[in-house]
Amino acid sequence: MGKVNLEQKFSLFSEHWSPKIVGELNGQQVKLAKLKGEFVWHQHEHEDELFFVVKGSFNMEFRDRTVVVNENEFLIVPKGVEHRPVALEEVHIMLFEPASTLNTGDQVNAMTKKDLDRL
Amino acid sequence: MGKVNLEQKFSLFSEHWSPKIVGELNGQQVKLAKLKGEFVWHQHEHEDELFFVVKGSFNMEFRDRTVVVNENEFLIVPKGVEHRPVALEEVHIMLFEPASTLNTGDQVNAMTKKDLDRL
Repeated sequence: MGKVNLEQKFSLFSEHWSPKIVGELNGQQVKLAKLKGEFVWHQHEHEDELFFVVKGSFNMEFRDRTVVVNENEFLIVPKGVEHRPVALEEVHIMLFEPASTLNTGDQVNAMTKKDLDRL
Repeated sequence: MGKVNLEQKFSLFSEHWSPKIVGELNGQQVKLAKLKGEFVWHQHEHEDELFFVVKGSFNMEFRDRTVVVNENEFLIVPKGVEHRPVALEEVHIMLFEPASTLNTGDQVNAMTKKDLDRL
């Protein structure tokens, strides 16, 4: 039941596209990630996903539009909607999503991360 | 599927202890609230609750200790644990909890808020 300081947790890792678990509640997980560059197009069949920007900004690409998400903004991507995060510069994000969510959704490839670290 | 800017949403209300719904995902809700003063002791029988401080700081009192939660920190209060938020100065928080969660938990009194506004 300790509190979590985001800055302290972000200082513990540097790799991109590798979410770390920092909290769990009601079957959901809170994850932190650093993004830089282009991710892969994917969707989550059963899970909505929340992206909150702690530092920096990134583009969430959808098939028909792009949403720029800045610091202190969040975006919820509903299940079944194809999306691709693209970060021109490094961005620090906090994710809320079910514990079952795989980072690459319906795509399994070199960017897929399983057995995430807990910080 | 629009993004949510926390500062813009906080500018839309001023009352304390009156959470506003700003997002929904996977049966959970994202709420924003401004706190000032002492809340009531309560617990949530079935729901864990996450408090993230966007601006300011507050004390989360438990029966055996107090945790000071500062900006860019979060605290998860597990179900069944009595707690009382106390904010010496106004604090802006983001909550993440099941849609079923009542602000005063197992206590129903003048501070209980039902049918929350959506911003």
